[in-house]
Amino acid sequence: METIKNYVESHKARFLEELFELIRIPSISAIKEHSDDMRKAAELLKDSLIKAGADQAEVKSTSGWPVVYGYKMIDESLPTVLVYGHYDVQPVEPLDLWDSPPFEPEVRDGKIFARGADDDKGQLFMHLKAFELMNRTGTLACNVKFMIEGEEEIGSPNLKEFCRQHKEMLKADIILISDTTMIAQDIPSITVGLRGLSYLEVEMTGPNRDLHSGLYGGAVGNPANLLAKMIASLTDENNHITIPGFYDDVVEVSGNERAEMAKAPFRLEDYKKALDITEVTGEKGYSTNERTGIRPSLDVNGIWSGYTGEGAKTVLPSKAHAKISMRLVPNQESKKIDALFIDHFMKNAPEGTKVKVKSLHGGQGYVTPINFPAYRAASNAIEQSFGKKPIPVRSGGSIPIVSDFEEVLGIKSILMGFGLDSDAIHSPNENYPLFNFYKGIETIPLFYRFFASEMK
Amino acid sequence: METIKNYVESHKARFLEELFELIRIPSISAIKEHSDDMRKAAELLKDSLIKAGADQAEVKSTSGWPVVYGYKMIDESLPTVLVYGHYDVQPVEPLDLWDSPPFEPEVRDGKIFARGADDDKGQLFMHLKAFELMNRTGTLACNVKFMIEGEEEIGSPNLKEFCRQHKEMLKADIILISDTTMIAQDIPSITVGLRGLSYLEVEMTGPNRDLHSGLYGGAVGNPANLLAKMIASLTDENNHITIPGFYDDVVEVSGNERAEMAKAPFRLEDYKKALDITEVTGEKGYSTNERTGIRPSLDVNGIWSGYTGEGAKTVLPSKAHAKISMRLVPNQESKKIDALFIDHFMKNAPEGTKVKVKSLHGGQGYVTPINFPAYRAASNAIEQSFGKKPIPVRSGGSIPIVSDFEEVLGIKSILMGFGLDSDAIHSPNENYPLFNFYKGIETIPLFYRFFASEMK
Repeated sequence: METIKNYVESHKARFLEELFELIRIPSISAIKEHSDDMRKAAELLKDSLIKAGADQAEVKSTSGWPVVYGYKMIDESLPTVLVYGHYDVQPVEPLDLWDSPPFEPEVRDGKIFARGADDDKGQLFMHLKAFELMNRTGTLACNVKFMIEGEEEIGSPNLKEFCRQHKEMLKADIILISDTTMIAQDIPSITVGLRGLSYLEVEMTGPNRDLHSGLYGGAVGNPANLLAKMIASLTDENNHITIPGFYDDVVEVSGNERAEMAKAPFRLEDYKKALDITEVTGEKGYSTNERTGIRPSLDVNGIWSGYTGEGAKTVLPSKAHAKISMRLVPNQESKKIDALFIDHFMKNAPEGTKVKVKSLHGGQGYVTPINFPAYRAASNAIEQSFGKKPIPVRSGGSIPIVSDFEEVLGIKSILMGFGLDSDAIHSPNENYPLFNFYKGIETIPLFYRFFASEMK
Repeated sequence: METIKNYVESHKARFLEELFELIRIPSISAIKEHSDDMRKAAELLKDSLIKAGADQAEVKSTSGWPVVYGYKMIDESLPTVLVYGHYDVQPVEPLDLWDSPPFEPEVRDGKIFARGADDDKGQLFMHLKAFELMNRTGTLACNVKFMIEGEEEIGSPNLKEFCRQHKEMLKADIILISDTTMIAQDIPSITVGLRGLSYLEVEMTGPNRDLHSGLYGGAVGNPANLLAKMIASLTDENNHITIPGFYDDVVEVSGNERAEMAKAPFRLEDYKKALDITEVTGEKGYSTNERTGIRPSLDVNGIWSGYTGEGAKTVLPSKAHAKISMRLVPNQESKKIDALFIDHFMKNAPEGTKVKVKSLHGGQGYVTPINFPAYRAASNAIEQSFGKKPIPVRSGGSIPIVSDFEEVLGIKSILMGFGLDSDAIHSPNENYPLFNFYKGIETIPLFYRFFASEMK
């Protein structure tokens, strides 16, 4: 532990500067114009792996953005850890709500502010630096592989195929991922459940052109009004989702388990205060943590139609659009939910409109067992570095690829995340505390050590 | 009539070129950046008035965009016609749906394509050229005043005050306006009714920042979903507007009058075909023409929230916005409807959200009597130039200032419009047929002649 602490302490400034270099590349996977940036970020990571001590590293192309792969094999008889992370980030809109430019990282109040500061550049980079540390200090206890993709934020459309094509290359005993949160800096936790995702886009067309709302208003179906009606009808007064068949595969969590979950520290007043809302809103009969942990949900992620500029334009729009996503619990099939959603929208398209629905991305939910070596190793590592045993929690987020890993590679994942809910990932002013960044680098080598003993 | 026809025929090309010069100025009143263009358009019109034979013309400033005023007084004993029009135009978005640039007018299929080709630069310019014609041919039968504003498309916020300040200067026997449509080139009509307008903007705020829809989805009220619900609830299953008190001042039109209106030529199949819709949608119990002519309506003119770019962003937005307008029938008070709408939104704001509503613009409806001199003069002028007696019709559109004119100046207006429904005003590919442009220039001098005899 002393060796680790000393190494981190004496390289702190360089670690941060190297992370900033990565963050400065605006590698937004959703926007095609960032093609050069995607390539640049991948190359930087490849070079970082080599410098940190990898035997080999390369940028491997896929049908989409490339995957960075690297490894260090020290002993065939030792267990192998496959580190997964992603170098792509979310778009940055709305830009005017950022207090500093999203791709010019800066430290304020002990936190790194930038897009990707946490998700996932900051968390991923801890693994690169922990890997460097273990190599430099001769403490590497496992073989290591890195698979760093560039399409996580757009649903990893090519990673499953990549895994299929490289099953042998990716052989490992555990997949180690830091892309989730812990409850607080003094309340460490490990994510043992993730929700799945179905993300779709709807286009409703009314008249074949924008019309004058005076000359036509009242006589022609307005797709903005009608799409609002369809969205409104997707949930009932109890915030149950009304799509027929939606809950068919949802398994009710037992009363015992719910009671266990309710022990996690949570103060509704603090939660509401942090978000500046007077009331929480969600499915009747469930607590806030249950609503994100064990229940599915439906959100409009974006909606747009008609005139959205300054002032008043009296237009009856031709088209209305919405991006709508559903978070799914582990037993729900993302593709089946897509189909139910599309079917529902097509069947209920208002008279006089045309509706198109396309699936943008999706993935299965996942539950991690807490009685297996990797969980114990992570729990011990965190307990040693944070001084407290971590709480297993179910997160509302999705890492769709985790269930694919199990399906294609037959390898389980451990979600040892060091982010905080307050990191504002996907939002303006995304940030990552320096404390968590450095603590993560200290914790990871402990995981390798405990995992090696567990697997002996 | 021969004199008129000859003059128009021999100056056709120049008329068109002069109109194009005006159209090329992107005088969009809703967008502050067009300040220079607004001034340029006003100056051009002032110069045009002088060149056409005005005694005097000037650009008069207001608290907003300026008003162009000019006149020619030939004989105190003759009646005075006050021509009203506007040099401002609607915004042009969505730009990608235009087949040619909106401010580079071009003639295709006998139509001028450009923003403002009809509304109102094309229609206004007919009056300037008719005025020139009467001056050059010595046939001017009335005194003439021109009042051309730059704020019609944003609700004429300063024109009422302008009228109040210049009551004496604006004295006239009739206000002549070409800013409406006729049924078809071979079915001339005169608009005798206009709807009023209440146009508001709603902002709903949920959490204080955009959230990750996985971590928070299902537990925090999403303003995009909730605004959709509020919009959906503004109309019921019969497309009645549900805002309490909304219909209080609506006077039901008698069965007789409705039977009379139903005689106007209208083919629902053609209407649907032109808009490429399979069904019309509107208030139960009323025909399509009644829905726009004698009944109020409610339309979302714009809605936006969350991520609207390419691909998928899993955001639970902090804010959702909508521009919503209501068309009112003559007895409804725009300000009262604004208040009812605002009250309804504030009272029904979902728990956990904050709602702001502001009125963007509005105006009263108007009904023109058909048994007075100006109507007869317009009817006779159109009959002589088109060869058919025009049909009096009620339009769904609004020219809020018309009722203000009557209130402040005590002068009635006659709406002698030459546009067609197919002119796509306020839409991409706005156009104005050359036939209507030249026919308008021929018809206007006849109006002056008939009006002078009526007033003798």
